[in-house]
Amino acid sequence: MARYQVILAYDGTHFFGFQRQTEERTVQGVLEKALREIGWPGSTTLAAGRTDTGVHASGQVIAFDLDWRHSSVELQSALNANLPQDVAARSVKLAEPGFHPRFDAVGRCYRYRLYCKPVRNPLWDRYAWRVWPVLDLERLQNSARHLHGQHDFSAFGTPLKPGGSTVRNVTDAAWSLDGEDLIFTITANAFLYHMVRRLVSFQVQIGQGKQAPSANLEKLDVASNEIVQGLAPPQGLVLTEVIYTS
Amino acid sequence: MARYQVILAYDGTHFFGFQRQTEERTVQGVLEKALREIGWPGSTTLAAGRTDTGVHASGQVIAFDLDWRHSSVELQSALNANLPQDVAARSVKLAEPGFHPRFDAVGRCYRYRLYCKPVRNPLWDRYAWRVWPVLDLERLQNSARHLHGQHDFSAFGTPLKPGGSTVRNVTDAAWSLDGEDLIFTITANAFLYHMVRRLVSFQVQIGQGKQAPSANLEKLDVASNEIVQGLAPPQGLVLTEVIYTS
Repeated sequence: MARYQVILAYDGTHFFGFQRQTEERTVQGVLEKALREIGWPGSTTLAAGRTDTGVHASGQVIAFDLDWRHSSVELQSALNANLPQDVAARSVKLAEPGFHPRFDAVGRCYRYRLYCKPVRNPLWDRYAWRVWPVLDLERLQNSARHLHGQHDFSAFGTPLKPGGSTVRNVTDAAWSLDGEDLIFTITANAFLYHMVRRLVSFQVQIGQGKQAPSANLEKLDVASNEIVQGLAPPQGLVLTEVIYTS
Repeated sequence: MARYQVILAYDGTHFFGFQRQTEERTVQGVLEKALREIGWPGSTTLAAGRTDTGVHASGQVIAFDLDWRHSSVELQSALNANLPQDVAARSVKLAEPGFHPRFDAVGRCYRYRLYCKPVRNPLWDRYAWRVWPVLDLERLQNSARHLHGQHDFSAFGTPLKPGGSTVRNVTDAAWSLDGEDLIFTITANAFLYHMVRRLVSFQVQIGQGKQAPSANLEKLDVASNEIVQGLAPPQGLVLTEVIYTS
């Protein structure tokens, strides 16, 4: 038996999120089914994070123990041959026996894509949020800078564990252009539930002038039970990377 | 009654091509259904081109006659409200009574997207073709230059009408990079059946060194019944624009 670490990509459109559920199609469910096809005797895989229904990933990290006599590359091929078209193992490598994708992670990176058009575009809507009226990029860039550093984000989400800390350390947050699309990237040690989608929604209100440029600041470090209104839709969001120290 | 000209975008994944068929879901079928919902009494819409099963469009052009008492913008809204999520009218405007989107077109532009990776990526596969081993961009760019001008393309496709001409005038053909993706763009007065997908497949063989850089040249202007082997898959292809003189 050895522990393997896998970088997983998936299109979240047709999944009820990552975490296994009895009745619904989930990423963990199809992954464990594929693993059983190649002789995995385990009962559960470990994952870095639980993405929500409709959220995508290009860099989810999972781990499992397997008795495999061939190379990691051959394990990757076997896994991909048994995974459905909307999930793929991008890399497979041996990990230390105690490696845990969630507890060992020191950072997570998310990317959110949106486009500003008065009319929907069927070729973009699967991976982006359509926003109208148009956003002011400079306002967005200024508002993202306020997010940097260690803050109490309780206005933007709830901890996964009831009563857990709402303080998170954001090491990077920025808006940029990709062609006609607007991209929000954010890296933090960890995230609260729905935190990225609430931050995006709130910044969109700033970018449209519905909130002052300083509104982000006023919501940070305010220990309050009041969570901001608005949640950006899931299809714009991608978990792009999970960071480990080694 | 007035004639309207509509720029249509669609995700071709779940369509059996553009052209109406009795049993299958087609773009023309859902478009005409949406038009009937808003009072269109016609029996057929006109279109610039018939895209194949799985091929996308961001700039298909269609036309129809309608007695509409409101503005073109309101017609666009009404149409989009009745179209499914994978089709949208990007613009609607009044056209001359005799306007025909196919016969009046002087050029068509297509874009083909591919990426070079050893493993599939579920977030890219809906709109791109995965190719491996990697392609030599310079070889591709040189091979595309050979396509410019008026040539007999009979080695790359059949005319839509049996016995029709196989001579087409390519005004632009080029390969470029878009992030990690390779993009082939081509503009011509018109195209033979499957011509773009055959050209892409053949150039990929050149880019992988399976065909000489001059192979394109040798296939041009050769009146032959032999069509080159290989057809790039439909999901990488988008009809991006139809050009009119006025």
